[in-house]
Amino acid sequence: MKMSEDIAMDTDRLSETLQLMGRKARAAAGELACATTHQKNGALLAVARDLQSAVPAILAANALDVSRAESHELSAAMVDRLRLTPERIEKMADEVRNVSDLPDPVGTTLNRWRRPNGMEITKVRVPIGVVGIIYESRPNVTCDAAVLCLKTGNTCILRGGSEAVESNRAIAEVIRKSIASCGLPADAVQLVSSTDRSAVALLAKMDRYIDMIVPRGGHALIEAVVENARMPVIKHYHGVCHVYLDETADSKMAEAIVVNAKCQRPGTCNAAETLLVHQAVADALLPKIGEALSQNGVELRGDEATRKILGATCHEATEADWWEEYLDLILSIKIVADMDEAIRHINHYGSHHSDAIITRDEHAAERFLREVDSAAVYWNASTRFTDGGEFGFGAEIGISTDKLHARGPMGLEELTTYKYTVRGEGQVRE
Amino acid sequence: MKMSEDIAMDTDRLSETLQLMGRKARAAAGELACATTHQKNGALLAVARDLQSAVPAILAANALDVSRAESHELSAAMVDRLRLTPERIEKMADEVRNVSDLPDPVGTTLNRWRRPNGMEITKVRVPIGVVGIIYESRPNVTCDAAVLCLKTGNTCILRGGSEAVESNRAIAEVIRKSIASCGLPADAVQLVSSTDRSAVALLAKMDRYIDMIVPRGGHALIEAVVENARMPVIKHYHGVCHVYLDETADSKMAEAIVVNAKCQRPGTCNAAETLLVHQAVADALLPKIGEALSQNGVELRGDEATRKILGATCHEATEADWWEEYLDLILSIKIVADMDEAIRHINHYGSHHSDAIITRDEHAAERFLREVDSAAVYWNASTRFTDGGEFGFGAEIGISTDKLHARGPMGLEELTTYKYTVRGEGQVRE
Repeated sequence: MKMSEDIAMDTDRLSETLQLMGRKARAAAGELACATTHQKNGALLAVARDLQSAVPAILAANALDVSRAESHELSAAMVDRLRLTPERIEKMADEVRNVSDLPDPVGTTLNRWRRPNGMEITKVRVPIGVVGIIYESRPNVTCDAAVLCLKTGNTCILRGGSEAVESNRAIAEVIRKSIASCGLPADAVQLVSSTDRSAVALLAKMDRYIDMIVPRGGHALIEAVVENARMPVIKHYHGVCHVYLDETADSKMAEAIVVNAKCQRPGTCNAAETLLVHQAVADALLPKIGEALSQNGVELRGDEATRKILGATCHEATEADWWEEYLDLILSIKIVADMDEAIRHINHYGSHHSDAIITRDEHAAERFLREVDSAAVYWNASTRFTDGGEFGFGAEIGISTDKLHARGPMGLEELTTYKYTVRGEGQVRE
Repeated sequence: MKMSEDIAMDTDRLSETLQLMGRKARAAAGELACATTHQKNGALLAVARDLQSAVPAILAANALDVSRAESHELSAAMVDRLRLTPERIEKMADEVRNVSDLPDPVGTTLNRWRRPNGMEITKVRVPIGVVGIIYESRPNVTCDAAVLCLKTGNTCILRGGSEAVESNRAIAEVIRKSIASCGLPADAVQLVSSTDRSAVALLAKMDRYIDMIVPRGGHALIEAVVENARMPVIKHYHGVCHVYLDETADSKMAEAIVVNAKCQRPGTCNAAETLLVHQAVADALLPKIGEALSQNGVELRGDEATRKILGATCHEATEADWWEEYLDLILSIKIVADMDEAIRHINHYGSHHSDAIITRDEHAAERFLREVDSAAVYWNASTRFTDGGEFGFGAEIGISTDKLHARGPMGLEELTTYKYTVRGEGQVRE
C-alpha cells in the first residue's frame, strides 16, 4: 500500500536510517533499564496528560489519513478503524493511566538460592532491551505498544500501517516529548515514518539492535517478518479454536458457550471456528444448538453425520473447513466417535490457541486439559476469555500463538526477561 | 566436511527424509507429552543399562570415526574429543541415571488464580514439543541431549557433526531401542544420519514440525541456523567475559578471581577475556596480578596506561582485542576512569554472558549487578560459575547467550514451556 506521495527512498538510505534508529534505541535502552518505577510512571502520566492537550493536533493528522483512505476507496470498516475522535483519544489516555497504575514487573525476584560454596544466586526480572513492533491496525496501537514498553523499561521501534502514518507520527511525537519532559530519553519510543514496505524485512534483520520483534497483522506481514527475522519473533497469529461437547455435556451450558464462543465477537482470534460433538449426544444436542446458531445468523458447515441431524440448514464441510479461521459468522461441525478423536482433531487441525471441552465428567475434563496442546484450554467456559484483560493481566500487548518466551495473552511480565545476579565472598571454581 | 564415502543424496530427497522425521517427531511428541514421570524415568534407567551392555558396539562404531579422523589428519585435540573409551561410556550412563533422579518439571503449577467471574486459571509447565539440536562436539552430546529431552517430555531431532556420525548412530540406536522397550515411542529420539551440510538449513526451515532449535557449535554453524530459522533459536554462542576491579577491591581476592576466571579452563565460554581496573588501584594491583598471570602462562595485552605499569611483559592491545573471545591463555587489560566507564565498556564490547565486579563497596556492587546487561553478573566470584551444574540445575543442555525463553545456563525447566488451563462452570464472555 505504498502511497504515491511518498518520497522514493532507496533501500540503502532506508537501511541507514533504520540502523541509526537501532543505535539510538540501544543507547536509550541502557538508560531506561535503570529508570525507577517512579520515573517511568511519571512519564506515563505525562503522556496521558499531553495526549489530551494534543487532541486538536492528533485529529488534524488523523483527518489527513482518513481523507487519503477515502480517496483510495478503502472499505468503510477500515476507514472506521482508522478514524480518531476526541473520545477515542480520551480512551487512549485512560489506558495509559491504567498502565501507570499496574505493578512494575522489573526488579522482581523470581527465585533465590544459596549454593553449597556460599554463593547466593538471584534470578531477577529485567527489561528485554529493544522491542520492534510491526502492526497494521488502528493508530491507538502506537500508543498502547509505546506505553507498555515504557512501563517495562524497554525501548521500542514502532512500524505502523502506511494508511495511519500521519496519525501515528502525531501520537509518537506527543509521547516522545512527554518522555523527554520527564528526563527520560525521547528515543525510548521511535516510529519508522517511512511507508516503504522493505522496512519490515530490514528491521527483521537488525538483530544487533532489536532483541525481540512482534508482528501484529495479517498473514503476509507475519510471513515477511518470520522469513527475514534473525531475532526472536512473537507472533500474534490466527486462531482456529474448538468447542468439544463431551458425552456428559450439560445441554444448556453447551448451547450458551457455543453461541458465545462463535457469536459474541466472531472477528477475534479466540472465537470458535469448529464445533466437535460426541456421537452419543449429537442427536440430543445438535438440533437445539443448530437452531440457536442459525437465529444468530451463523452459517453451519457439517460433516455427513451432522447433516443427517441438521438437514438442509447445514452446508457440507470439506477438508479445507477444518483448517479454516473464518473470523465470521460461520461454524464447522463434526461428530466424533469419542474424546480421543476430538483431541486428535484439535491437535492436528487447530492452531494451539484456545480450545474448550463442555462436560460434567471431571476425569474427561482433566484429560482434555492435559492432552490438548494449546495456549489456553478450557473446561466449561468460553474460548473468548483468552485475553490479557480477562486473565487479569491489566494490559495486553497481544496474544502469542508461539510456544516460547510468551504463550497466550502477553501482559507486562511477558515484556521482560531475567538475569542472574550472584553474590560471593571470593569464590573461585575448583 | 562432507565425506567422500557418503552416498550423494540430492536436496529434494534429503528434504523429504527430514520432513518425514519431522512428522514422526510431532506424532511421538503428542504421546511423550502424556507419559508419566515414572514411565520417563524407567526409560532413562533402561537407556543407562543398555549403554553399558552396548559398550563393544559403540566402541566399534567409534573406531571407524577415529580412524577416519586420523586419516583426514584432524588435530590430536579433535581426535581426542571424538574418542570414546569404556570409561567415557560409563560416564555417559552415569549422567543418564543422574537425569532420571532429577525432579520432573512437567506438570508443575507455576501460578494459579481465580477471576471475579469464578473461573480458575492455572499456569502449568508442559513440554515444548519437538526440539532440534545441531551440534559439532563430542559424541556424548547425542546421549546428553536425547535424555534431557526425554526427561522433559520433548521429542528431539539430533544432527551431530559428520566426524562423529558412526558413534552418534550407534548411541542413538541404543537409546531408541531402550525407549521402545519401555513402551514409549522410539521416534522420541531421531538422528539425522546424513552428513550433507544442507540438512542444517533444511531443518531450520521446518517450523511446522520443530518448535525450538538449539545450535551448539562454531560461528558458521550458528550463522547457518540463524540465517534460515523460522522457529525460535536458542544460541549457545561466544562469551566475552569481564572481571572489573573496583576502587575497593581486596587485592588477594582480586588476584585469585582473575587467575581463576582466566586460567582454570581458558577454552570455555565463561572464562574471562578482559580485565578492567579502576585507575585508583591500578598501580597497587596490576603488578602482582600481572606476575601471577604470567606465571600461569597468560599473554597480556594492555592499553597504554596498563603498559606503563606492566612494562614489556604486556603487549599492546588494539580495538580488536576488546571484542575478542580468545578461548586461550590471553587476557586484554584496560584501566578505566571509574565504574561508569567499566559498565559502558562491558555493555558495549561484551557478549552479555558473564561479568564480575570485585569490590568491598556494597553500593558499587549493587549498581554493577543492576546495570550490567548480562545473563550472569557476579560480585566477588569467578565468571567460571556460569554453568548448569554450578548453578545447581543438575543437568545442562547448554548456556544460552540469547535473552528470550532461556538466558544463561539451561537446565530441565528451560526445556519446558507453559499453558493455561481454565476451569469454569459455564462462564461466557459478556
